[in-house]
Amino acid sequence: MNEESRISHFTNPLYLQSGRILEPYDIAYNTYGSLNEKRDNCILVCHALTGSQHCSGSLNEKYGWWSNIIGPNKAIDTNEYFVICTNVIGSAFGSTSPISKIYPKDISYRFSFPVVTISDMIKAQRILLDSLDIKQLYAIIGGSMGGMQTLSFSILYPNIAKKFIALSTTHATSPYIIAFNKIMSEAIISDTNFDNGNYDLEYKPILNGLKIARMIGYLHYITKETMQNKFGRNYVNSDGLYELFGRFEIERYLDYNGENFCNKFDPLCLLYLLKAISIYDLSYGFNSLEDALKNIKNKLYLISFSGDSMFFANEMREIKTAMDAIGSSHLCDYYEVKSEYGHDSFLVECDKYADYLSNILKS
Amino acid sequence: MNEESRISHFTNPLYLQSGRILEPYDIAYNTYGSLNEKRDNCILVCHALTGSQHCSGSLNEKYGWWSNIIGPNKAIDTNEYFVICTNVIGSAFGSTSPISKIYPKDISYRFSFPVVTISDMIKAQRILLDSLDIKQLYAIIGGSMGGMQTLSFSILYPNIAKKFIALSTTHATSPYIIAFNKIMSEAIISDTNFDNGNYDLEYKPILNGLKIARMIGYLHYITKETMQNKFGRNYVNSDGLYELFGRFEIERYLDYNGENFCNKFDPLCLLYLLKAISIYDLSYGFNSLEDALKNIKNKLYLISFSGDSMFFANEMREIKTAMDAIGSSHLCDYYEVKSEYGHDSFLVECDKYADYLSNILKS
Repeated sequence: MNEESRISHFTNPLYLQSGRILEPYDIAYNTYGSLNEKRDNCILVCHALTGSQHCSGSLNEKYGWWSNIIGPNKAIDTNEYFVICTNVIGSAFGSTSPISKIYPKDISYRFSFPVVTISDMIKAQRILLDSLDIKQLYAIIGGSMGGMQTLSFSILYPNIAKKFIALSTTHATSPYIIAFNKIMSEAIISDTNFDNGNYDLEYKPILNGLKIARMIGYLHYITKETMQNKFGRNYVNSDGLYELFGRFEIERYLDYNGENFCNKFDPLCLLYLLKAISIYDLSYGFNSLEDALKNIKNKLYLISFSGDSMFFANEMREIKTAMDAIGSSHLCDYYEVKSEYGHDSFLVECDKYADYLSNILKS
Repeated sequence: MNEESRISHFTNPLYLQSGRILEPYDIAYNTYGSLNEKRDNCILVCHALTGSQHCSGSLNEKYGWWSNIIGPNKAIDTNEYFVICTNVIGSAFGSTSPISKIYPKDISYRFSFPVVTISDMIKAQRILLDSLDIKQLYAIIGGSMGGMQTLSFSILYPNIAKKFIALSTTHATSPYIIAFNKIMSEAIISDTNFDNGNYDLEYKPILNGLKIARMIGYLHYITKETMQNKFGRNYVNSDGLYELFGRFEIERYLDYNGENFCNKFDPLCLLYLLKAISIYDLSYGFNSLEDALKNIKNKLYLISFSGDSMFFANEMREIKTAMDAIGSSHLCDYYEVKSEYGHDSFLVECDKYADYLSNILKS
């Protein structure tokens, strides 16, 4: 598989939904496979909150988060398709984000970075595609925050792709998830080592707030049932049951997972991405969800997971119901995967929908 | 209604499950109504995590957390019953806890306080009842952590009451809730103002960690659906949608609720009570849950709520199933309240089970 990792630099202003401007800005992206002569075999993959452009392969020893789905002879077959995945603006893997330098100064944006929205993210991706002379995509696909981008593409740029495939997402973030995002943000901000966003970017201090934020997020990544099967009430062998800081195995795992995350993710970026998710509402600027969906021109495929405790299956069914209500049944397929895994199903239970996905692309 | 608030001081050692000893110790308790001549009309009410002995009335302007259930002509009728509610050891409302002084020194226990268990809590209550010459209770009742105490009473002191009534609880805390408790604890401990437990007890600093812990807890007190109905995606009028710290109404409420909680609850006590809940397992010391339940001699009533997202209804059904399996169906009634409210149902939807409860007590 032909893999490339690039960064494009744009000097024209990016006009954001807030009225603010990013100028100049970078977009980091990876590609897998080859663009055909007609330039019409491109699939855009949109990443989730903690994802990146490294959706497949193993460039620079970064392994792809969707390698089970994307690659030679996989559901998204890189022998056939040219896959492109960009790092969203606001995220820290090469695209312009709160930790980028403010041109031409030698200081970083930090909290002076503008709030970016899902619409802003896709606008930037559209500009990148234009710059690569890719006018027409074969498909756009993404899960979770990537699904939000996919849905927004289908409404705001309805002709840009032939197929839009959204997984494990919603049409508007629920107050329940806004509450989770709020608490995660509060944990980050309250950490004195975060220093109101002025922590050392090069030698990052230990950030307990970021660790706690990750732990809170983890509560949705697997379900109650999976936790029961995976950890049960097993206690760490070397810990005492009556020690206040003695731990169950699930607690040790949370420590491990949280600390690990701190080495990989930036807290300022997480704050901005959580904000983008919280304020996301597909019907924003329209009279209703139905009104927004009337813009859809090409086929939308929805893949939900029954065990998803972040973006519940019924939230995706609401999109299908609204599509039916406006007489667009033929433009929308809804597929519910039986799963007990939780929100991370779309990343870990790929077997359960790979065939369905492969058939969509072949159809 | 005759109301009294007292503290009993015990000079004999309290031997804890851990092998540690509390000596001396205090138990704070409230009583409502009057003990009859036979001393057999007493109902012991067990409080939940953030509850206290103030379960009814309005002594010292502290309003009872279960006033809808306990009082003259209420489901627990204080014209008929003598209600007693003790503050559990480890909690900060007058009973011995981590913030109590270590006799005879002038310093507080803080982290030198021993881990206490649900069994320890009920042992202390048993000693208090003995000291009041109450040998036989009419009933024991409690929800959530109070339900854990009730279940433990039914197994460890099976003859102490004629009826045991447990609401919104479980037979063993699930790893899912252990994870929540862990993250709440982590938030408290990570707060530099908490100062590793050495914060000023008299003039408490602002404790963001405690606020975050409360916010995390709140995620279970109401459901996703209730949040949707109560807050929706309403944005605070004076906040900007594109301000990073602009807030949805649910976020403002979390701030309010969290800050309010900090004025009412002690973080060290919360850590110890969360630990007691996490390590609670009714089958501890027995071969199985069934084995534990074989000790039950008097009738056990289980009241669960379909919307409870902390102690799921199926966890209480497991107790009923186990009772059936050991041939004790006649000793166990299971009642599931249809509710969409969440774990706090037993406190806020009293109408839905008051008649059932009243009939249990009259039967």
